[in-house]
Amino acid sequence: MIYLDNGATTFPKPTGVVRAVSGAMTSLGANPGRSGHRMSLRGAEMIYSCRSEAAEFFGLSEPERVIFTHNCTAALNTVIHGVLKRGDHAVVSSLEHNAVVRPLEELKKYGVEYSVAEVFEGDDEHTIDSFRSQFRKNTKLVVCTHASNVFGIRLPVERISALCRINGILFCLDAAQTAGVLPINLSDSCIDYLCTAGHKGLYGPMGTGFLLINSETMPDSLIQGGTGSYSSDRLQPEQLPDKYESGTPNVAGIAGLREGLRFVKSRGTDNLARHEMRLAQLMYDRLKNTAGVELYTARPEISTHVPVISFNIEGTDSERVAQILNDRFGIAVRAGLHCAPLAHISKGTVERGTVRAVLSAFNNQRHAEYFCQCVNKSVIYNEKKVAFDI
Amino acid sequence: MIYLDNGATTFPKPTGVVRAVSGAMTSLGANPGRSGHRMSLRGAEMIYSCRSEAAEFFGLSEPERVIFTHNCTAALNTVIHGVLKRGDHAVVSSLEHNAVVRPLEELKKYGVEYSVAEVFEGDDEHTIDSFRSQFRKNTKLVVCTHASNVFGIRLPVERISALCRINGILFCLDAAQTAGVLPINLSDSCIDYLCTAGHKGLYGPMGTGFLLINSETMPDSLIQGGTGSYSSDRLQPEQLPDKYESGTPNVAGIAGLREGLRFVKSRGTDNLARHEMRLAQLMYDRLKNTAGVELYTARPEISTHVPVISFNIEGTDSERVAQILNDRFGIAVRAGLHCAPLAHISKGTVERGTVRAVLSAFNNQRHAEYFCQCVNKSVIYNEKKVAFDI
Repeated sequence: MIYLDNGATTFPKPTGVVRAVSGAMTSLGANPGRSGHRMSLRGAEMIYSCRSEAAEFFGLSEPERVIFTHNCTAALNTVIHGVLKRGDHAVVSSLEHNAVVRPLEELKKYGVEYSVAEVFEGDDEHTIDSFRSQFRKNTKLVVCTHASNVFGIRLPVERISALCRINGILFCLDAAQTAGVLPINLSDSCIDYLCTAGHKGLYGPMGTGFLLINSETMPDSLIQGGTGSYSSDRLQPEQLPDKYESGTPNVAGIAGLREGLRFVKSRGTDNLARHEMRLAQLMYDRLKNTAGVELYTARPEISTHVPVISFNIEGTDSERVAQILNDRFGIAVRAGLHCAPLAHISKGTVERGTVRAVLSAFNNQRHAEYFCQCVNKSVIYNEKKVAFDI
Repeated sequence: MIYLDNGATTFPKPTGVVRAVSGAMTSLGANPGRSGHRMSLRGAEMIYSCRSEAAEFFGLSEPERVIFTHNCTAALNTVIHGVLKRGDHAVVSSLEHNAVVRPLEELKKYGVEYSVAEVFEGDDEHTIDSFRSQFRKNTKLVVCTHASNVFGIRLPVERISALCRINGILFCLDAAQTAGVLPINLSDSCIDYLCTAGHKGLYGPMGTGFLLINSETMPDSLIQGGTGSYSSDRLQPEQLPDKYESGTPNVAGIAGLREGLRFVKSRGTDNLARHEMRLAQLMYDRLKNTAGVELYTARPEISTHVPVISFNIEGTDSERVAQILNDRFGIAVRAGLHCAPLAHISKGTVERGTVRAVLSAFNNQRHAEYFCQCVNKSVIYNEKKVAFDI
């Protein structure tokens, strides 16, 4: 199988990640931070070191500001539900994932409003104006994806977050698709909250995510419970990271995530981005020259895009194309809306979705070339009306 | 190491669980339910089969009513936050964990009240009366532990839940300490919501838990986001399990949990409970005859207790006892409040906590006897004031 579904989760994981997960099941099998015995302490140490390495990786000086979550969605919900209260207003980009839109829709029941700022690919000025025009007196939070999970379009988040800071608005970055691919340094940024998955560009296992808090404004906790600390207090502790980490953590997942982070650091984010972008450009160029293939963005460059290719074959449903690529050619891609209907509305693809190919460190030129050949064959099959009988 | 900290998490895990987790990292590495390619479908099938087996295990006819959560705390928060609204009242037992108490304290900010019903060990009539006396006109939910995580005391949950049903009150069972040890059959019960950890008596990995919904009253979702379904809809789907499962699941964790469930089924809950209770009784009897050791419950029997021993050594802090058992004798137990201050208030141990030993399928008579010898030695050391210089 040629796996190009790295936007959903990266696969394969580095061998060190797989080994760390297995190892944790047998050598870090106690509940960390609860007991004083050796294995519990070793688990707590491992978690602290992952926290600490993540803080360093993202430019946070205090490791306790790194919160482990179940996934990026849980991190985003913590910020969105925890910051926005009755009467507040939020602004999001037109490329947001349902992990941002659905909590905001839920909050409408509780008197929270939100507006959508249109993103203009390749025209940052226009995009910035678009955000500015949505600001109201009661705008408290902007939630913005670092890059579209569907089209790979980067947003000018440095400028948007700076605009927010100037206007006294909190800024939350959804880096699900970018952490590990684009450099993110919170120390010199206006990003208040960074949410990301652990299992995509950070190469950790599914079931892991991060919330990094770079603000003195602490969201209310979404979940309260035992933290192994201040146990006699019936109130949720205010101390970080305990405030946001109730109940037993995913120890094996975090052990794997630590190795994923180390893998990314050893390869270098810039090198990974360059490698993946080179393949994405190869694919884009070939598909651009394939009659019958529709592309939706400008040629990807690292300054404007992440290594994501979204396309369709004319006159064919995206799900059918993904199916033939899988069934006939052994290529794993994803089709449909990718949980981001807003993004499709702006590109006119909300009816049929797109086929999406996303690169990782483990893809190579052979994969990219084979993929292009197979898309080409799919077009021919499609024209001959034979392809979809499989 | 002799591991007796199975109340925090069971260790070791069955080899099938460890193998399943490792195997999932390499063979089920795609995001399930998102894409149509083979590995994604295989992951979705594995998750469905775990859901299905859990439904059968707990007597639910519809697998989609089984919700995977990050841990038991997340499951309890989903029910507590999702059911209780301004003006509502809840009742909990005096043995509840902070996973129940802290969300209720948080909800006080939003106009929700709660009362605590005293539990009387060995006197179910009195306990039932205690619950009944706390009911108010606006009581909407009772949350009740199946057995105390600190003292192992079972609550008469069949009767409490029936009392709730008669009074039109929803009943949520916290089975963190009992699932896999006590039989739970939702089909003939008045339990509306069952919350449990996956990593304790079900022998799955940490980072897993269950919420089982046995009611037509659906709590609001706590977290909203992408579900891989109804993607064009900005509203969280109402369909189960999607409503409560946003974002990427812990695939490797669930693969391990499925094997944990199978392990419990193959051994038999009754056999596991008998085995562990026999060891608990052995420990209880020896400690009862050890001068200087304080115990807090009647002799454990499966009809009234689960296999948990809480004790102290007279005149000594519980943390110090756990430390000496670990450092000098290689025994892993937990000390302190075990995240359940309410339980300690009722037993007068809130200042010093207790030392807790909890059995699992992997403990044997040798472990139990060695433990008792070491507690005995610790008492002697303590009297001679030499023990704690280590």
